[in-house]
Amino acid sequence: MFRGLSAFPLTPLKEGTFDEQAFINLLRPVVDAGVDSLGILGSTGSYAYLTVEERGRIARCAVAHADDIPVIVSIGALRLDDILRLADDAQAAGVSGVLMAPVSYQRLTEDEAFNLYETVTRQLSVPLCIYDNTATTGFTFSDELLFAVAALPNVGSIKLGRVPEDLSQVRARLSDTVTLGIAGDWRAASALQAGFDVWYSVLAGLFPQTALAIARSGNNAESERLEPLWELFRHYGSLRVITAAAEMMGKVAAPALPFPLQSLQGEPREALAKLFVSLELA
Amino acid sequence: MFRGLSAFPLTPLKEGTFDEQAFINLLRPVVDAGVDSLGILGSTGSYAYLTVEERGRIARCAVAHADDIPVIVSIGALRLDDILRLADDAQAAGVSGVLMAPVSYQRLTEDEAFNLYETVTRQLSVPLCIYDNTATTGFTFSDELLFAVAALPNVGSIKLGRVPEDLSQVRARLSDTVTLGIAGDWRAASALQAGFDVWYSVLAGLFPQTALAIARSGNNAESERLEPLWELFRHYGSLRVITAAAEMMGKVAAPALPFPLQSLQGEPREALAKLFVSLELA
Repeated sequence: MFRGLSAFPLTPLKEGTFDEQAFINLLRPVVDAGVDSLGILGSTGSYAYLTVEERGRIARCAVAHADDIPVIVSIGALRLDDILRLADDAQAAGVSGVLMAPVSYQRLTEDEAFNLYETVTRQLSVPLCIYDNTATTGFTFSDELLFAVAALPNVGSIKLGRVPEDLSQVRARLSDTVTLGIAGDWRAASALQAGFDVWYSVLAGLFPQTALAIARSGNNAESERLEPLWELFRHYGSLRVITAAAEMMGKVAAPALPFPLQSLQGEPREALAKLFVSLELA
Repeated sequence: MFRGLSAFPLTPLKEGTFDEQAFINLLRPVVDAGVDSLGILGSTGSYAYLTVEERGRIARCAVAHADDIPVIVSIGALRLDDILRLADDAQAAGVSGVLMAPVSYQRLTEDEAFNLYETVTRQLSVPLCIYDNTATTGFTFSDELLFAVAALPNVGSIKLGRVPEDLSQVRARLSDTVTLGIAGDWRAASALQAGFDVWYSVLAGLFPQTALAIARSGNNAESERLEPLWELFRHYGSLRVITAAAEMMGKVAAPALPFPLQSLQGEPREALAKLFVSLELA
Protein backbone atom coordinates (compact mmCIF):
# COMPACT_ATOMS: atom_id res chain seq x y z
CA MET A 1 0.00 0.00 0.00
CA PHE A 2 2.83 2.43 0.82
CA ARG A 3 3.96 2.53 -2.84
CA GLY A 4 3.53 4.66 -5.93
CA LEU A 5 1.47 7.82 -5.67
CA SER A 6 -0.32 8.64 -2.45
CA ALA A 7 -2.67 11.63 -2.77
CA PHE A 8 -3.19 13.94 0.23
CA PRO A 9 -6.39 15.93 -0.26
CA LEU A 10 -7.43 18.95 1.77
CA THR A 11 -10.02 18.70 4.49
CA PRO A 12 -12.21 21.65 3.47
CA LEU A 13 -14.03 23.65 6.11
CA LYS A 14 -17.10 25.80 5.60
CA GLU A 15 -17.73 28.42 8.25
CA GLY A 16 -15.24 26.62 10.43
CA THR A 17 -16.69 23.12 10.27
CA PHE A 18 -16.04 20.10 8.07
CA ASP A 19 -17.61 20.47 4.63
CA GLU A 20 -18.47 16.86 3.85
CA GLN A 21 -19.89 17.43 0.39
CA ALA A 22 -16.89 19.45 -0.77
CA PHE A 23 -14.61 16.74 0.65
CA ILE A 24 -16.42 14.01 -1.26
CA ASN A 25 -16.24 16.14 -4.41
CA LEU A 26 -12.48 16.50 -3.89
CA LEU A 27 -12.03 12.76 -3.46
CA ARG A 28 -13.97 11.69 -6.56
CA PRO A 29 -11.50 12.75 -9.31
CA VAL A 30 -8.57 11.55 -7.21
CA VAL A 31 -10.14 8.11 -6.82
CA ASP A 32 -11.16 8.01 -10.48
CA ALA A 33 -7.62 8.91 -11.56
CA GLY A 34 -6.38 5.70 -9.93
CA VAL A 35 -3.84 6.94 -7.41
CA ASP A 36 -2.27 4.16 -5.34
CA SER A 37 -3.53 5.38 -1.98
CA LEU A 38 -5.31 8.26 -0.28
CA GLY A 39 -3.54 10.08 2.57
CA ILE A 40 -6.43 11.49 4.57
CA LEU A 41 -6.01 14.04 7.34
CA GLY A 42 -2.33 14.58 6.68
CA SER A 43 -0.78 17.96 7.35
CA THR A 44 -2.53 19.02 4.14
CA GLY A 45 -5.72 17.61 5.64
CA SER A 46 -5.36 19.93 8.67
CA TYR A 47 -5.51 17.01 11.08
CA ALA A 48 -3.89 18.95 13.90
CA TYR A 49 -6.75 21.48 13.84
CA LEU A 50 -9.59 18.98 14.07
CA THR A 51 -11.10 17.21 17.04
CA VAL A 52 -10.90 13.48 17.61
CA GLU A 53 -14.61 13.24 16.77
CA GLU A 54 -14.25 15.20 13.53
CA ARG A 55 -11.30 13.07 12.51
CA GLY A 56 -13.23 9.84 13.10
CA ARG A 57 -16.07 11.11 10.96
CA ILE A 58 -13.72 12.21 8.17
CA ALA A 59 -11.95 8.84 8.17
CA ARG A 60 -15.29 7.04 7.78
CA CYS A 61 -16.32 9.39 4.99
CA ALA A 62 -13.04 8.83 3.13
CA VAL A 63 -13.25 5.04 3.33
CA ALA A 64 -16.84 5.17 2.12
CA HIS A 65 -15.82 7.10 -1.00
CA ALA A 66 -12.43 5.53 -1.77
CA ASP A 67 -13.72 2.55 -3.78
CA ASP A 68 -10.90 0.00 -3.64
CA ILE A 69 -8.12 2.50 -3.04
CA PRO A 70 -6.36 2.02 0.30
CA VAL A 71 -6.91 4.85 2.78
CA ILE A 72 -4.15 6.02 5.12
CA VAL A 73 -5.15 8.32 7.99
CA SER A 74 -2.98 10.43 10.25
CA ILE A 75 -3.37 9.67 13.96
CA GLY A 76 -0.87 12.26 15.24
CA ALA A 77 -1.77 14.22 18.37
CA LEU A 78 -0.07 15.58 21.47
CA ARG A 79 -1.69 13.15 23.92
CA LEU A 80 -1.34 9.39 23.82
CA ASP A 81 -4.96 8.79 24.76
CA ASP A 82 -6.08 10.89 21.78
CA ILE A 83 -3.70 9.01 19.48
CA LEU A 84 -5.03 5.65 20.62
CA ARG A 85 -8.61 6.75 20.15
CA LEU A 86 -7.81 8.10 16.70
CA ALA A 87 -6.17 4.78 15.84
CA ASP A 88 -9.21 2.85 17.07
CA ASP A 89 -11.60 5.08 15.13
CA ALA A 90 -9.51 4.85 11.96
CA GLN A 91 -9.21 1.08 12.16
CA ALA A 92 -12.91 0.72 12.86
CA ALA A 93 -13.55 2.89 9.80
CA GLY A 94 -11.63 0.41 7.69
CA VAL A 95 -8.42 2.28 6.85
CA SER A 96 -5.51 0.29 5.45
CA GLY A 97 -2.76 2.19 7.24
CA VAL A 98 -2.02 5.08 9.55
CA LEU A 99 0.49 7.89 9.56
CA MET A 100 2.00 9.50 12.63
CA ALA A 101 4.35 12.44 13.23
CA PRO A 102 5.94 13.11 16.63
CA VAL A 103 3.64 16.07 17.24
CA SER A 104 5.18 18.29 19.87
CA TYR A 105 4.50 21.35 21.96
CA GLN A 106 7.34 20.64 24.33
CA ARG A 107 9.78 19.31 21.76
CA LEU A 108 10.11 15.58 22.41
CA THR A 109 13.40 14.01 23.41
CA GLU A 110 14.58 11.00 21.41
CA ASP A 111 13.56 8.68 24.25
CA GLU A 112 10.10 10.21 24.41
CA ALA A 113 9.61 9.89 20.65
CA PHE A 114 10.76 6.28 20.64
CA ASN A 115 8.51 5.40 23.59
CA LEU A 116 5.60 7.00 21.78
CA TYR A 117 6.08 5.00 18.59
CA GLU A 118 6.72 1.81 20.54
CA THR A 119 3.52 2.23 22.57
CA VAL A 120 1.38 3.12 19.58
CA THR A 121 2.66 0.52 17.10
CA ARG A 122 2.16 -2.23 19.69
CA GLN A 123 -1.56 -1.51 19.65
CA LEU A 124 -2.12 -1.26 15.91
CA SER A 125 -3.63 -3.84 13.60
CA VAL A 126 -2.71 -1.91 10.42
CA PRO A 127 0.76 -0.73 9.33
CA LEU A 128 2.06 2.70 10.27
CA CYS A 129 4.01 5.24 8.26
CA ILE A 130 6.50 7.30 10.28
CA TYR A 131 6.02 10.94 9.40
CA ASP A 132 9.17 13.00 9.68
CA ASN A 133 8.22 16.68 9.39
CA THR A 134 10.46 19.03 11.33
CA ALA A 135 8.70 22.13 9.99
CA THR A 136 5.44 21.29 11.73
CA THR A 137 6.61 19.25 14.73
CA GLY A 138 9.85 21.01 15.58
CA PHE A 139 11.21 17.50 16.07
CA THR A 140 14.20 16.21 14.12
CA PHE A 141 14.81 12.47 13.86
CA SER A 142 18.42 11.43 14.18
CA ASP A 143 19.33 8.58 11.81
CA GLU A 144 19.68 6.26 14.80
CA LEU A 145 16.21 7.04 16.09
CA LEU A 146 14.63 6.74 12.66
CA PHE A 147 16.11 3.29 12.13
CA ALA A 148 15.13 2.20 15.64
CA VAL A 149 11.52 3.32 15.13
CA ALA A 150 11.45 1.81 11.62
CA ALA A 151 12.39 -1.56 13.14
CA LEU A 152 9.31 -1.60 15.39
CA PRO A 153 6.51 -4.04 14.54
CA ASN A 154 3.77 -2.67 12.27
CA VAL A 155 5.96 0.02 10.72
CA GLY A 156 5.47 -0.07 6.97
CA SER A 157 6.90 3.15 5.61
CA ILE A 158 8.81 6.35 6.32
CA LYS A 159 7.67 9.70 4.95
CA LEU A 160 10.82 11.79 4.64
CA GLY A 161 11.12 15.48 3.80
CA ARG A 162 14.60 15.07 2.35
CA VAL A 163 16.56 12.83 0.00
CA PRO A 164 19.44 11.20 1.92
CA GLU A 165 22.85 11.57 0.30
CA ASP A 166 23.49 7.85 0.38
CA LEU A 167 20.17 6.14 -0.20
CA SER A 168 21.65 2.65 -0.49
CA GLN A 169 23.07 2.99 3.00
CA VAL A 170 19.63 3.97 4.31
CA ARG A 171 18.05 1.01 2.51
CA ALA A 172 20.60 -1.37 3.96
CA ARG A 173 19.49 -0.41 7.46
CA LEU A 174 15.76 -0.80 6.77
CA SER A 175 13.74 -3.98 6.68
CA ASP A 176 12.50 -4.98 3.21
CA THR A 177 8.96 -4.44 4.48
CA VAL A 178 9.53 -0.72 5.13
CA THR A 179 9.14 1.55 2.10
CA LEU A 180 10.70 4.97 1.68
CA GLY A 181 8.41 7.86 0.83
CA ILE A 182 9.10 11.46 -0.13
CA ALA A 183 7.24 14.55 1.05
CA GLY A 184 7.71 17.98 -0.50
CA ASP A 185 6.31 17.74 -4.01
CA TRP A 186 9.20 19.62 -5.62
CA ARG A 187 11.58 16.82 -4.52
CA ALA A 188 9.38 13.96 -5.67
CA ALA A 189 10.63 13.35 -9.20
CA SER A 190 14.28 13.24 -8.20
CA ALA A 191 13.48 11.17 -5.10
CA LEU A 192 11.55 8.60 -7.15
CA GLN A 193 14.42 8.45 -9.63
CA ALA A 194 16.86 7.94 -6.78
CA GLY A 195 14.84 4.92 -5.66
CA PHE A 196 12.14 6.12 -3.30
CA ASP A 197 9.08 3.85 -3.32
CA VAL A 198 6.27 6.32 -2.80
CA TRP A 199 5.43 9.98 -3.23
CA TYR A 200 3.21 11.40 -0.49
CA SER A 201 1.78 14.16 -2.63
CA VAL A 202 -0.10 17.39 -1.95
CA LEU A 203 -0.43 18.07 -5.68
CA ALA A 204 -2.16 14.73 -6.27
CA GLY A 205 -4.92 15.67 -3.83
CA LEU A 206 -6.18 18.33 -6.27
CA PHE A 207 -4.42 17.66 -9.58
CA PRO A 208 -4.12 13.87 -9.68
CA GLN A 209 -3.49 13.60 -13.43
CA THR A 210 -0.59 16.04 -13.29
CA ALA A 211 0.88 14.18 -10.31
CA LEU A 212 0.40 10.80 -12.00
CA ALA A 213 2.20 12.08 -15.07
CA ILE A 214 5.22 12.90 -12.87
CA ALA A 215 4.98 9.71 -10.81
CA ARG A 216 4.70 7.40 -13.82
CA SER A 217 6.95 9.20 -16.30
CA GLY A 218 10.23 8.30 -14.71
CA ASN A 219 11.90 11.55 -15.70
CA ASN A 220 12.23 15.01 -14.27
CA ALA A 221 10.96 17.05 -17.19
CA GLU A 222 7.32 17.08 -16.10
CA SER A 223 8.30 18.14 -12.60
CA GLU A 224 10.68 20.82 -13.84
CA ARG A 225 7.85 22.28 -15.87
CA LEU A 226 6.02 22.92 -12.60
CA GLU A 227 8.89 24.82 -10.97
CA PRO A 228 6.85 28.08 -10.71
CA LEU A 229 4.29 26.14 -8.65
CA TRP A 230 6.97 24.48 -6.51
CA GLU A 231 8.40 27.92 -5.85
CA LEU A 232 5.04 28.98 -4.37
CA PHE A 233 4.86 25.74 -2.36
CA ARG A 234 8.29 26.32 -0.84
CA HIS A 235 7.71 29.98 -0.14
CA TYR A 236 4.16 30.00 1.22
CA GLY A 237 3.64 26.39 2.26
CA SER A 238 1.93 23.89 -0.01
CA LEU A 239 -1.21 23.90 2.17
CA ARG A 240 -1.86 27.62 1.64
CA VAL A 241 -1.20 27.32 -2.10
CA ILE A 242 -3.28 24.22 -2.82
CA THR A 243 -6.16 25.60 -0.74
CA ALA A 244 -6.12 28.83 -2.71
CA ALA A 245 -6.21 26.75 -5.88
CA ALA A 246 -9.20 24.73 -4.66
CA GLU A 247 -10.97 27.93 -3.61
CA MET A 248 -10.38 29.60 -6.96
CA MET A 249 -11.56 26.49 -8.81
CA GLY A 250 -14.78 26.65 -6.78
CA LYS A 251 -14.15 23.20 -5.34
CA VAL A 252 -14.24 24.41 -1.75
CA ALA A 253 -15.83 27.39 -0.01
CA ALA A 254 -13.49 30.23 0.97
CA PRO A 255 -12.10 30.38 3.61
CA ALA A 256 -11.54 26.62 3.62
CA LEU A 257 -8.75 26.62 6.22
CA PRO A 258 -9.17 26.82 10.01
CA PHE A 259 -8.61 30.36 11.29
CA PRO A 260 -5.96 31.74 11.76
CA LEU A 261 -4.54 29.81 8.78
CA GLN A 262 -5.08 31.61 5.50
CA SER A 263 -4.85 30.36 1.95
CA LEU A 264 -2.64 32.33 -0.41
CA GLN A 265 -3.91 35.92 -0.79
CA GLY A 266 -3.07 38.98 -2.83
CA GLU A 267 -0.41 39.02 -5.52
CA PRO A 268 0.83 35.44 -5.15
CA ARG A 269 -2.78 34.27 -5.42
CA GLU A 270 -3.09 36.08 -8.72
CA ALA A 271 0.19 34.55 -9.85
CA LEU A 272 -1.20 31.14 -8.95
CA ALA A 273 -4.34 31.76 -11.01
CA LYS A 274 -2.17 32.38 -14.07
CA LEU A 275 -0.22 29.18 -13.41
CA PHE A 276 -3.39 27.08 -13.70
CA VAL A 277 -3.61 28.12 -17.30
CA SER A 278 0.04 28.19 -18.27
CA LEU A 279 0.89 24.89 -16.55
CA GLU A 280 -2.29 23.10 -17.70
CA LEU A 281 -2.82 21.60 -14.26
CA ALA A 282 -5.32 18.77 -14.24
CA MET B 1 -0.74 42.68 37.71
CA PHE B 2 1.94 41.92 35.12
CA ARG B 3 4.72 42.99 37.51
CA GLY B 4 7.21 41.49 39.94
CA LEU B 5 7.28 37.72 40.32
CA SER B 6 4.74 35.57 38.50
CA ALA B 7 4.86 31.91 39.54
CA PHE B 8 4.07 29.20 36.96
CA PRO B 9 3.20 25.98 38.78
CA LEU B 10 2.94 22.56 37.17
CA THR B 11 -0.40 21.00 36.37
CA PRO B 12 0.18 17.57 37.91
CA LEU B 13 -1.45 14.51 36.39
CA LYS B 14 -2.13 11.23 38.12
CA GLU B 15 -2.67 8.24 35.84
CA GLY B 16 -3.10 10.68 32.99
CA THR B 17 -5.77 12.92 34.49
CA PHE B 18 -5.66 16.18 36.45
CA ASP B 19 -4.67 15.63 40.08
CA GLU B 20 -6.65 18.38 41.77
CA GLN B 21 -5.44 17.74 45.31
CA ALA B 22 -1.77 17.74 44.29
CA PHE B 23 -2.38 20.95 42.34
CA ILE B 24 -3.94 22.67 45.35
CA ASN B 25 -1.04 21.49 47.49
CA LEU B 26 1.38 22.99 44.97
CA LEU B 27 -0.46 26.32 45.00
CA ARG B 28 -0.61 26.73 48.77
CA PRO B 29 3.06 27.56 49.52
CA VAL B 30 3.28 29.73 46.40
CA VAL B 31 0.27 31.76 47.50
CA ASP B 32 1.52 31.94 51.09
CA ALA B 33 4.92 33.15 49.91
CA GLY B 34 3.25 36.22 48.43
CA VAL B 35 4.22 36.06 44.78
CA ASP B 36 2.74 38.84 42.66
CA SER B 37 0.69 36.62 40.37
CA LEU B 38 0.04 33.01 39.46
CA GLY B 39 0.60 31.89 35.88
CA ILE B 40 -1.70 28.91 35.55
CA LEU B 41 -1.63 26.51 32.61
CA GLY B 42 1.48 28.03 31.09
CA SER B 43 3.86 25.84 29.12
CA THR B 44 4.97 24.59 32.54
CA GLY B 45 1.32 23.92 33.28
CA SER B 46 1.10 21.63 30.20
CA TYR B 47 -1.80 23.63 28.77
CA ALA B 48 -1.25 22.36 25.25
CA TYR B 49 -1.85 18.78 26.42
CA LEU B 50 -5.15 19.41 28.19
CA THR B 51 -8.68 19.64 26.85
CA VAL B 52 -10.74 22.82 26.89
CA GLU B 53 -12.90 21.27 29.64
CA GLU B 54 -9.91 20.34 31.79
CA ARG B 55 -8.46 23.80 31.39
CA GLY B 56 -11.70 25.46 32.48
CA ARG B 57 -11.81 23.29 35.57
CA ILE B 58 -8.17 24.01 36.41
CA ALA B 59 -8.68 27.77 36.01
CA ARG B 60 -11.62 27.66 38.44
CA CYS B 61 -9.62 25.61 40.90
CA ALA B 62 -6.70 28.04 40.76
CA VAL B 63 -8.86 31.12 41.33
CA ALA B 64 -10.56 29.38 44.26
CA HIS B 65 -7.19 28.78 45.94
CA ALA B 66 -5.30 31.95 45.01
CA ASP B 67 -6.59 34.14 47.86
CA ASP B 68 -6.07 37.71 46.61
CA ILE B 69 -3.27 36.91 44.21
CA PRO B 70 -4.14 37.65 40.58
CA VAL B 71 -4.41 34.58 38.37
CA ILE B 72 -3.24 34.60 34.75
CA VAL B 73 -4.30 31.67 32.56
CA SER B 74 -3.00 30.62 29.17
CA ILE B 75 -5.65 30.46 26.45
CA GLY B 76 -3.34 29.33 23.62
CA ALA B 77 -4.65 26.70 21.19
CA LEU B 78 -4.49 25.90 17.49
CA ARG B 79 -8.14 26.74 16.77
CA LEU B 80 -9.75 30.09 17.26
CA ASP B 81 -13.00 28.61 18.55
CA ASP B 82 -11.08 26.76 21.27
CA ILE B 83 -9.19 29.94 22.18
CA LEU B 84 -12.40 31.93 22.52
CA ARG B 85 -14.00 29.25 24.67
CA LEU B 86 -10.90 29.09 26.85
CA ALA B 87 -11.02 32.86 27.22
CA ASP B 88 -14.70 32.77 28.18
CA ASP B 89 -14.14 29.98 30.70
CA ALA B 90 -11.12 31.74 32.21
CA GLN B 91 -12.93 35.06 32.50
CA ALA B 92 -16.00 33.37 34.00
CA ALA B 93 -13.65 31.70 36.51
CA GLY B 94 -12.48 35.14 37.60
CA VAL B 95 -8.94 35.32 36.25
CA SER B 96 -7.24 38.71 36.16
CA GLY B 97 -5.40 38.19 32.89
CA VAL B 98 -4.70 35.75 30.10
CA LEU B 99 -1.59 34.65 28.28
CA MET B 100 -1.41 33.55 24.64
CA ALA B 101 1.32 32.17 22.41
CA PRO B 102 0.89 31.84 18.62
CA VAL B 103 0.52 28.06 18.90
CA SER B 104 1.26 26.54 15.52
CA TYR B 105 1.23 23.29 13.67
CA GLN B 106 1.49 24.93 10.29
CA ARG B 107 3.84 27.71 11.31
CA LEU B 108 1.82 30.93 11.19
CA THR B 109 2.68 33.76 8.86
CA GLU B 110 3.02 37.24 10.36
CA ASP B 111 -0.38 38.21 8.95
CA GLU B 112 -2.00 35.13 10.45
CA ALA B 113 -0.47 35.76 13.86
CA PHE B 114 -1.52 39.41 13.83
CA ASN B 115 -5.07 38.52 12.78
CA LEU B 116 -5.22 35.98 15.57
CA TYR B 117 -4.19 38.45 18.27
CA GLU B 118 -6.45 41.15 16.85
CA THR B 119 -9.45 38.83 16.84
CA VAL B 120 -8.83 37.49 20.32
CA THR B 121 -7.96 40.74 22.09
CA ARG B 122 -11.09 42.39 20.67
CA GLN B 123 -13.20 39.90 22.61
CA LEU B 124 -11.42 40.04 25.96
CA SER B 125 -12.49 41.81 29.11
CA VAL B 126 -9.16 41.18 30.90
CA PRO B 127 -5.66 42.12 29.73
CA LEU B 128 -3.56 39.71 27.69
CA CYS B 129 0.13 38.90 27.88
CA ILE B 130 1.75 38.09 24.52
CA TYR B 131 3.74 34.91 24.90
CA ASP B 132 6.76 34.72 22.63
CA ASN B 133 8.15 31.18 22.79
CA THR B 134 9.79 30.00 19.60
CA ALA B 135 10.91 26.71 21.15
CA THR B 136 7.36 25.48 21.61
CA THR B 137 5.48 27.30 18.84
CA GLY B 138 8.10 27.31 16.09
CA PHE B 139 6.95 30.90 15.52
CA THR B 140 9.35 33.83 15.73
CA PHE B 141 8.00 37.35 16.22
CA SER B 142 9.71 40.01 14.19
CA ASP B 143 10.17 43.26 16.11
CA GLU B 144 7.61 44.92 13.84
CA LEU B 145 4.97 42.28 14.51
CA LEU B 146 5.62 42.30 18.24
CA PHE B 147 5.15 46.06 18.46
CA ALA B 148 2.04 45.89 16.27
CA VAL B 149 0.47 43.21 18.46
CA ALA B 150 1.54 45.02 21.63
CA ALA B 151 -0.36 48.11 20.43
CA LEU B 152 -3.66 46.21 20.25
CA PRO B 153 -6.32 47.00 22.87
CA ASN B 154 -6.22 44.81 26.00
CA VAL B 155 -2.56 43.89 25.64
CA GLY B 156 -0.90 44.34 29.04
CA SER B 157 2.43 42.55 28.84
CA ILE B 158 4.95 40.72 26.70
CA LYS B 159 6.64 37.54 27.89
CA LEU B 160 9.97 37.42 26.10
CA GLY B 161 12.49 34.60 26.02
CA ARG B 162 15.40 36.95 25.40
CA VAL B 163 16.84 40.23 26.63
CA PRO B 164 16.90 42.75 23.76
CA GLU B 165 20.23 44.44 23.18
CA ASP B 166 18.74 47.90 23.39
CA LEU B 167 15.98 47.76 25.97
CA SER B 168 15.35 51.50 25.97
CA GLN B 169 14.59 51.36 22.26
CA VAL B 170 12.08 48.57 22.88
CA ARG B 171 10.49 50.55 25.70
CA ALA B 172 10.20 53.62 23.53
CA ARG B 173 8.05 51.68 21.09
CA LEU B 174 5.74 50.24 23.74
CA SER B 175 2.82 51.90 25.44
CA ASP B 176 3.36 52.67 29.14
CA THR B 177 0.58 50.22 29.91
CA VAL B 178 2.49 47.26 28.45
CA THR B 179 5.01 45.64 30.79
CA LEU B 180 8.02 43.60 29.74
CA GLY B 181 8.43 40.14 31.19
CA ILE B 182 11.22 37.61 31.01
CA ALA B 183 10.91 33.87 30.53
CA GLY B 184 13.80 31.45 30.99
CA ASP B 185 14.65 31.52 34.68
CA TRP B 186 18.41 31.68 34.13
CA ARG B 187 18.00 35.04 32.39
CA ALA B 188 15.70 36.56 35.02
CA ALA B 189 18.13 38.29 37.35
CA SER B 190 19.98 40.07 34.57
CA ALA B 191 16.71 40.90 32.79
CA LEU B 192 15.22 42.44 35.95
CA GLN B 193 18.41 44.41 36.46
CA ALA B 194 18.24 45.63 32.88
CA GLY B 195 14.75 46.98 33.55
CA PHE B 196 12.27 44.18 32.85
CA ASP B 197 9.09 44.54 34.92
CA VAL B 198 8.17 40.95 35.59
CA TRP B 199 9.71 37.51 35.81
CA TYR B 200 7.45 34.72 34.51
CA SER B 201 9.05 32.01 36.59
CA VAL B 202 9.08 28.22 36.52
CA LEU B 203 11.21 28.07 39.66
CA ALA B 204 8.68 30.12 41.64
CA GLY B 205 5.99 27.52 40.97
CA LEU B 206 7.80 25.03 43.21
CA PHE B 207 10.43 27.04 45.10
CA PRO B 208 8.78 30.42 45.65
CA GLN B 209 11.08 31.58 48.44
CA THR B 210 14.18 30.98 46.36
CA ALA B 211 12.62 32.80 43.41
CA LEU B 212 11.51 35.69 45.62
CA ALA B 213 15.04 36.04 46.97
CA ILE B 214 16.26 36.50 43.39
CA ALA B 215 13.37 38.74 42.35
CA ARG B 216 13.65 41.04 45.36
CA SER B 217 17.41 41.07 45.89
CA GLY B 218 18.29 43.25 42.95
CA ASN B 219 21.59 41.52 42.33
CA ASN B 220 22.79 38.51 40.39
CA ALA B 221 24.54 36.60 43.15
CA GLU B 222 21.53 34.57 44.22
CA SER B 223 20.82 33.59 40.62
CA GLU B 224 24.46 32.75 39.92
CA ARG B 225 24.42 30.41 42.88
CA LEU B 226 21.73 28.39 41.06
CA GLU B 227 23.74 27.99 37.87
CA PRO B 228 23.89 24.16 38.21
CA LEU B 229 20.08 24.15 38.21
CA TRP B 230 19.86 26.56 35.28
CA GLU B 231 22.22 24.27 33.38
CA LEU B 232 19.71 21.43 33.82
CA PHE B 233 16.84 23.75 32.79
CA ARG B 234 18.63 24.74 29.59
CA HIS B 235 19.72 21.23 28.71
CA TYR B 236 16.61 19.19 29.51
CA GLY B 237 13.85 21.80 29.53
CA SER B 238 12.67 23.43 32.75
CA LEU B 239 9.40 21.46 32.67
CA ARG B 240 11.14 18.08 32.83
CA VAL B 241 13.45 19.29 35.60
CA ILE B 242 10.88 20.96 37.83
CA THR B 243 8.52 18.00 37.44
CA ALA B 244 11.27 15.60 38.52
CA ALA B 245 11.86 17.84 41.53
CA ALA B 246 8.17 17.83 42.47
CA GLU B 247 8.04 14.05 42.03
CA MET B 248 11.10 13.48 44.20
CA MET B 249 9.73 15.81 46.87
CA GLY B 250 6.55 13.70 46.93
CA LYS B 251 4.44 16.71 45.96
CA VAL B 252 3.06 15.05 42.84
CA ALA B 253 2.57 11.45 41.78
CA ALA B 254 5.05 10.07 39.23
CA PRO B 255 4.62 10.22 36.29
CA ALA B 256 3.08 13.68 36.59
CA LEU B 257 3.53 14.67 32.94
CA PRO B 258 1.31 13.67 30.02
CA PHE B 259 2.76 10.74 28.08
CA PRO B 260 5.00 10.83 26.03
CA LEU B 261 6.60 13.69 28.03
CA GLN B 262 8.92 12.43 30.73
CA SER B 263 10.37 14.18 33.73
CA LEU B 264 14.13 14.03 34.15
CA GLN B 265 15.30 10.42 34.57
CA GLY B 266 18.54 8.57 35.30
CA GLU B 267 21.79 10.36 36.05
CA PRO B 268 20.61 13.95 35.66
CA ARG B 269 17.73 13.16 38.03
CA GLU B 270 20.23 12.01 40.63
CA ALA B 271 22.27 15.16 40.05
CA LEU B 272 19.10 17.19 40.62
CA ALA B 273 18.44 15.40 43.92
CA LYS B 274 21.86 16.47 45.16
CA LEU B 275 21.19 20.07 44.10
CA PHE B 276 18.15 20.27 46.39
CA VAL B 277 20.49 19.89 49.31
CA SER B 278 23.49 21.85 48.12
CA LEU B 279 21.47 24.78 46.79
CA GLU B 280 19.05 24.85 49.74
CA LEU B 281 16.07 25.28 47.43
CA ALA B 282 12.97 26.41 49.27
